Amino acid sequence: MKGDRLLKLVIAYDGTHFVGWQRQKNARTVQETAEKAFRQILGARVSLVGAGRTDSGVHAEGQVAHVKIRSTLSPRILHRALNAILPEDVLIRSVEIAPRGFHARYSAKSKRYHYRIWNQPLRPLFDRTRLLHIPSALNIPRMKRVARSLQGRHDFRAFHSSGRPIASTIRTLRSLTIKTRQGVISIEAEADGFLYHMVRRIVGLLIEVGKGKIPPSSVCSLLNGTHRLIAPTAPAKGLSLLHVRYS
Amino acid sequence: MKGDRLLKLVIAYDGTHFVGWQRQKNARTVQETAEKAFRQILGARVSLVGAGRTDSGVHAEGQVAHVKIRSTLSPRILHRALNAILPEDVLIRSVEIAPRGFHARYSAKSKRYHYRIWNQPLRPLFDRTRLLHIPSALNIPRMKRVARSLQGRHDFRAFHSSGRPIASTIRTLRSLTIKTRQGVISIEAEADGFLYHMVRRIVGLLIEVGKGKIPPSSVCSLLNGTHRLIAPTAPAKGLSLLHVRYS
Repeated sequence: MKGDRLLKLVIAYDGTHFVGWQRQKNARTVQETAEKAFRQILGARVSLVGAGRTDSGVHAEGQVAHVKIRSTLSPRILHRALNAILPEDVLIRSVEIAPRGFHARYSAKSKRYHYRIWNQPLRPLFDRTRLLHIPSALNIPRMKRVARSLQGRHDFRAFHSSGRPIASTIRTLRSLTIKTRQGVISIEAEADGFLYHMVRRIVGLLIEVGKGKIPPSSVCSLLNGTHRLIAPTAPAKGLSLLHVRYS
Repeated sequence: MKGDRLLKLVIAYDGTHFVGWQRQKNARTVQETAEKAFRQILGARVSLVGAGRTDSGVHAEGQVAHVKIRSTLSPRILHRALNAILPEDVLIRSVEIAPRGFHARYSAKSKRYHYRIWNQPLRPLFDRTRLLHIPSALNIPRMKRVARSLQGRHDFRAFHSSGRPIASTIRTLRSLTIKTRQGVISIEAEADGFLYHMVRRIVGLLIEVGKGKIPPSSVCSLLNGTHRLIAPTAPAKGLSLLHVRYS
């Protein structure tokens, strides 16, 4: 129809005061917050489709969503108007006309997340909502070794939370890197797709390995599906969806 | 008296949800929050004296305070206990026995503040409570020129807010530097002492100079006391007390 347009949005948000991306009854979500801003500008309901559902407390630097709108406003004007209306914990980084047939979720080739740990004796102050505090020393070389062995195509069933039925738990973890800088440990993970809680469970395992509570040798049995992961799932606040890649 | 000890504390805080350092009736202040933590641990009232009174919304990386306590707890134990009790927006960086006669305010030789401006088109997201957003371009070389001319010993009367009577408005601004990095402009000021709102008024002037609204030539008349400053006082949230120096 005339004026119908498919837009691609890159959205950043501070997940602290959201119960996650996905719309829910009686709860503050990023999806609904953004849809409401569109409604205020366009005077019509729209529906956003996100590349992935981030959980409660998880942040995003580069969440991607598509939306079909009926408007002649330029993407540039719409972008400005949206950011002027949105609350201060959501920021749209870009608005552009999407390629024909674009789907934020199904067109995605890979996603990249990072997880940050504040590995210092005193707790973090200013970045406290985005860092997990671990005051004790961690064995970084050992964590790196385990991270390398998790890379590649594996059955990540042991890293899948929840009873939701799922067709396959095989995923390709393209990279899993650990960097340390000024007391912050950054764990970056890129994959063609992630299972529910997969990044946070990988991080949970790496932390236990770093503390010496789980031997690196046990990782093999996790990847061949013979064992369940016993490491706790790392808290949401350290996690951020960095980037979604499309072809 | 036996067990009486004078302690020096270095305190950091996120000023967003405080009405400032100084105790006030029916308002959340850093001083009272810290005093309450001491009371919980020691079972007795104590009184903190800060190096300076930061305003509502102003942050601190290195506020200094002294306190007299009657306790045999080691500074190390006390430090841990305080941080365990304090809310997440206050963090004590260190606790040590103060030199004899130490006074957080009167023994201070100089203070250093920084003010940060987010000079990019899109508003800041994660650091939004610690950055002033100015989307328009600023003339940095011109701001630097004015900053250099403000350095030194001058009558800063034009930069003094409020009707509070004060003995002298002459201060020595030891340094006033401007640095830019990744879209953030950092203005750092060090002086033997600051008048009320002085840093925020200096920053307010620099911003107007950067926007081209105030000519650099007008600064002379401000420093010889013949003119009042017409630039607005920069908002509190960009300001942080970095460091207090003692001999």
